[in-house]
Amino acid sequence: MADDKTMIHLSLDDVRDLAYRVLRRHGLGEAHVPLVAETIVAGERDGCAAHGVYRLTNCIRTLETGKVNPHAVPRIVPAAGAVVRVDADGGFAQAAFDQGLPLLVEKAQAHGIAILAINHCVHFAALWPEIEAVTAHGLVALACTPSHAWVAPAGGTAPLFGTNPIAFGWPRPDRDPYVFDFATSAVARGEIELHRRAGKPIPEGWTIDAQGNPTTDPEAGLAGALLTFGGHKGSALSTMVELLAGPLIGDMTSAESLAHDDGALASPYGGEIVIAIDPAGILGEAAAAHIARAEALFEGITGQGARLPSERRFAARRRTPAEGVTIARELYEELTRTA
Amino acid sequence: MADDKTMIHLSLDDVRDLAYRVLRRHGLGEAHVPLVAETIVAGERDGCAAHGVYRLTNCIRTLETGKVNPHAVPRIVPAAGAVVRVDADGGFAQAAFDQGLPLLVEKAQAHGIAILAINHCVHFAALWPEIEAVTAHGLVALACTPSHAWVAPAGGTAPLFGTNPIAFGWPRPDRDPYVFDFATSAVARGEIELHRRAGKPIPEGWTIDAQGNPTTDPEAGLAGALLTFGGHKGSALSTMVELLAGPLIGDMTSAESLAHDDGALASPYGGEIVIAIDPAGILGEAAAAHIARAEALFEGITGQGARLPSERRFAARRRTPAEGVTIARELYEELTRTA
Repeated sequence: MADDKTMIHLSLDDVRDLAYRVLRRHGLGEAHVPLVAETIVAGERDGCAAHGVYRLTNCIRTLETGKVNPHAVPRIVPAAGAVVRVDADGGFAQAAFDQGLPLLVEKAQAHGIAILAINHCVHFAALWPEIEAVTAHGLVALACTPSHAWVAPAGGTAPLFGTNPIAFGWPRPDRDPYVFDFATSAVARGEIELHRRAGKPIPEGWTIDAQGNPTTDPEAGLAGALLTFGGHKGSALSTMVELLAGPLIGDMTSAESLAHDDGALASPYGGEIVIAIDPAGILGEAAAAHIARAEALFEGITGQGARLPSERRFAARRRTPAEGVTIARELYEELTRTA
Repeated sequence: MADDKTMIHLSLDDVRDLAYRVLRRHGLGEAHVPLVAETIVAGERDGCAAHGVYRLTNCIRTLETGKVNPHAVPRIVPAAGAVVRVDADGGFAQAAFDQGLPLLVEKAQAHGIAILAINHCVHFAALWPEIEAVTAHGLVALACTPSHAWVAPAGGTAPLFGTNPIAFGWPRPDRDPYVFDFATSAVARGEIELHRRAGKPIPEGWTIDAQGNPTTDPEAGLAGALLTFGGHKGSALSTMVELLAGPLIGDMTSAESLAHDDGALASPYGGEIVIAIDPAGILGEAAAAHIARAEALFEGITGQGARLPSERRFAARRRTPAEGVTIARELYEELTRTA
C-alpha cells in the first residue's frame, strides 16, 4: 500500500503517535491520553474506519466545547456485593472502565454474575473494546449505553432514543471470542449524512421526516428522526437500553444527554453498563466442557455459509499490524494541522 | 358476550376449571397442575389466545408423547452466591421457576444482581409471567430461552436457532410494569401455518425454502426455515439466547432440543435464564427517585402516540375478570371430549 492523492498509509504506531499528539494538543490529561488513543488504534487495527482516526474529530469537538472533563479522576462508588459502580467524573469512559474492570472480573468470579455501572462518562467509541476486555477473562459479557436522542420509537413521530448500542461477547477457547455490537437504530446517523453529501436518496425504513412520515430524502430524515431496526422489537430493545444504562444506574436518558449537549455536537454524556457472567459460577468444573460444546453452534452458523458478527474485524486485526492502514488524506491533514 | 356457532364464552374460573380437568386427565402430577393451569388462565386473562387455552393442546401432546416428566420434583443445585440453579427434573418450567423465584429475589436484593438458571425443563409458555413475577418485587428482569431449531441464521440456508424469545421488565410504581416479550424470529411459526391453511401467500422476509431462497409460499417456508427479525442483528440476538440459556447453563441448544424431540412435536426441552437486578443495590436510597424519573421516558413514548409493548395485554387484564373470554367452540369441544 502506498500513499496517493486521496489516501495516506500509516502503520499502527503512526496511528498511535497521531492520536497521542492530537489528544495532548487539545488538552486531554496524561492519565487519559493512552487509554483514549488505544481505542482509536483498536478501531483502525480492526478496520472500523468510523471508530478509528476519524473519531478523533469527535474527541476534539468534545474537548473544545468543554463537554468532557480532560482531567477527570474516576472513583469507585460504594454499591452492593455484585455491583461495581464507577463515577467517571465527567471524563471519557475509558479511564472509568479501566478502573472498574478488575473489580468487575473479581466480583463476577466470586458471585457468578456482576454488573459494572459507569456514571457521568463521555462515550464516543464502540462497545466491543469493553466486551473483549471481559471475555479475555473467560467471562460472558453484555453491555449497552444510551447516546443522543435521534431515534423515534416505533409508531412515534419524534426523536426520543439514542442509537443505543447493545453488545455481547462469549469467550472461545484458543479462538477470537464471539462478539456482536450493533446500534438499535436502523442505521448509523453518519450513513444518512453520507447520502446527503452524495445527493443520494436513502432506503425506506431508515428515517421519518419532522412530521413523522416515512422519507427517502436524507435532508428531511436528518431534520426528523431515525427509525429503530426491526420495528417494534428494536424499539423495545432501545427502550431497554435507555432504562438499564439510564435511570437504573442513576444516569441520563438519551433525551437528557442531548439537552445537556445543548447544541455543542459533542459525544453523548451519561451512563454505561457491562454485565459479566462466569460460566464456572453456574456450572463449576463442568463449565469448560459446556463452553467447548458451544462451538457446535458456531460451526452450525459458519458451516452453512453465514458469517459470525465480528469475523471481518478479527481478520483485519491479523492483517493491519504488518500491513498498516490507510486513512483519508484530507482527514489526516486536518488532524496534523492542528496537532 | 354470548356463545354462537363458532365461539364459546367462558369466565376465567371456567378457563381454570377446564385447564385443571384437561391437565389431570392427561396425567400431570398434582404439584404441577395449579401452576401450569394458572399460566393458561393468565394467557386468556391477558387476551393472548396463542398462550391461553389453545396451549393446552401442546401440553397434551407433550404429556402423551412422554416428553415431559409429569411428576418432576425440581431441586435447587449448588452454585455461586448470586446464582440460583434449579434442575426442573424434566418437568414443565413453572414448578422450577416457582421454587427458584424466592431465592432469586433474595440473592438479587443481597448482591444487586442475580441470575436464575433453570435446567431440564419443558417450556411452552410466554416469558412475561416470569418477568412480571420478578418486577412485582421491584426488580428489573431479563429472561430468555431457546426452543426448537426452526430459524436460519442471517445469510444462512438451514434451521439452526429456535424462535428464541427475549423478555424484559421494569417495575413502575403504582402502574403496570414496562414489559416486552418477543420472539427473535420474524414471526411465530403458527402464523405461517395459518397462512398455509388459508391458502394465502406470506410476506417476503418471513421464510426461506429448503434451498435457502426467499419464498412467499407457506408450504415451502415450513419445509425450509423461518428468518430472524431485523436481519443480522436479530440473528445475533438469537445466537445470544442459544448461548445464554444453553451452554452457559449446561443445557441444550435449539438444535439439540429438536433432536431430543425426535419427531414427537412436543414443546421444547432445555434451559431458561432470568436475570434480576435490584435498583437499590446500585443506587441505594436514591433508587426510588430514579425509578420515578424513568416515567418521563414512558411519557415520551406514549405522548407521541406510540404504544408501550404490553398495553393491550394489561387492558385485557382489566376487562376479562368481569367480562370473561371467548374461545373457539371447536377447540373447546376437542378439549372437553378428552377431559
